[in-house]
Amino acid sequence: MVYVVVVYDMEADRTHKMLKFLRRYLTHVQHSVLEGDVTEGDLEKIRSGVDEMLKPGESTIIYCVSSEKMVERTVFGDDPAADDQFL
Amino acid sequence: MVYVVVVYDMEADRTHKMLKFLRRYLTHVQHSVLEGDVTEGDLEKIRSGVDEMLKPGESTIIYCVSSEKMVERTVFGDDPAADDQFL
Repeated sequence: MVYVVVVYDMEADRTHKMLKFLRRYLTHVQHSVLEGDVTEGDLEKIRSGVDEMLKPGESTIIYCVSSEKMVERTVFGDDPAADDQFL
Repeated sequence: MVYVVVVYDMEADRTHKMLKFLRRYLTHVQHSVLEGDVTEGDLEKIRSGVDEMLKPGESTIIYCVSSEKMVERTVFGDDPAADDQFL
């Protein structure tokens, strides 16, 4: 498994497409940010799906680390993942 | 040094404050996303500054790993950091 954080920047009326796709694999934790543990196979599906979906001027950054244990994650303010707004 | 990725979610008219603060320490790589290597001392300044700045309903997630080498970072689409839009 690989721990992945994905941040995307798309035109407002197209973000729902990306979100719907990424939620198959990851947890939505903030507007335009998803994270989670995925297999190498699913990571490849994420990469190719994201690549196909983007139009000029849009971008997505995928950060991968080999284990969630290597990442210290701190939320300040209202944790959007703590309520059902994003779940 | 610690490698840090910060994603914030604030009211639109207040984002510039957070951005201005975080740019003292990090590189702006996407709308509401900054990253970079910082000292432990600067990380503490970032944490306390972010915590003070947020209002109810806003949030910021800070991801830390002990070295940038542990992170594989891939950009899809137009890399916003590759032009001067964010620099």
